[in-house]
Amino acid sequence: MRIMGIDPGIAIVGFGILDQKGNQLKPVEYGSIQTEAGLSTATRLKQIYDACTKLFAEHRPDVVAIEKLFFNRNVTTAFTVGQARGVMMLAAEEANIPITEYTPLQVKMAVVGYGQAEKKQVQEMVKVLLGLPRVPKPDDVADALAIAICEAHSSSVIHKWSKWGAKR
Amino acid sequence: MRIMGIDPGIAIVGFGILDQKGNQLKPVEYGSIQTEAGLSTATRLKQIYDACTKLFAEHRPDVVAIEKLFFNRNVTTAFTVGQARGVMMLAAEEANIPITEYTPLQVKMAVVGYGQAEKKQVQEMVKVLLGLPRVPKPDDVADALAIAICEAHSSSVIHKWSKWGAKR
Repeated sequence: MRIMGIDPGIAIVGFGILDQKGNQLKPVEYGSIQTEAGLSTATRLKQIYDACTKLFAEHRPDVVAIEKLFFNRNVTTAFTVGQARGVMMLAAEEANIPITEYTPLQVKMAVVGYGQAEKKQVQEMVKVLLGLPRVPKPDDVADALAIAICEAHSSSVIHKWSKWGAKR
Repeated sequence: MRIMGIDPGIAIVGFGILDQKGNQLKPVEYGSIQTEAGLSTATRLKQIYDACTKLFAEHRPDVVAIEKLFFNRNVTTAFTVGQARGVMMLAAEEANIPITEYTPLQVKMAVVGYGQAEKKQVQEMVKVLLGLPRVPKPDDVADALAIAICEAHSSSVIHKWSKWGAKR
């Protein structure tokens, strides 16, 4: 099972790809798609769409997990993130990859086990759970990996695994 | 000069295509793209993207005018509309069509000449300005035509024309 987590945005899109085998989560690739502020929104959206299409074709994830609407963000941010999210969902749909959505609360619960966890705690836990040498930068990459872990934890195998307390 | 106005949404996307020749505005085609509520968001976004791509290829507008962020809408609406808007902007970018954006206030000013105009007044004015037998339905279609008129009024030719009071 290959899972790709995405933290959507117009300037920086974080992505993290994990392979889930039994109770193991192995990072395959993670990084960010970045677009320049000076470009038109349409050009930036096309760059994001093209990069996602390429990543999907290259890594063929079985599922794409995207962060859900952050209700306390402001309307302008929601609109901008929404536009970027739209082209990513389109790219996934065109590649026939199912999309799942998780709220920041669900991600925190899945990764840290605590809904009020700080951003830093989530990032440290991502590092530990995936055995990474350091917290990936920018933050959007760590966030994308956290979303991918959340998706993994939603499958029955990992549920069983975390119930047995293998790593938590 | 061929102008396409778009009123974005996930359930209903209104569109209106006008030909602007000198001081004349001739409606070419107008209507709506509708997606079913029961479908996944990704599927609906793909339907919107495909329909826009087809419309752009068929009618080859010189410019696409889209309604800009409606600041007093709520965050969830902004997010949903943003997603739909993202795939439309992508389709326009892929077809190499420039995109312009207008706020509802700018549209009202351009069509009715009064920023506090009621929705009904704008729609009636669309009917009159384009010589239509009746106000197009659903509202999203009339709104899209209003956005296209706003784009036309932003060009110097029409500015001159309205200064001379030919129709207003």
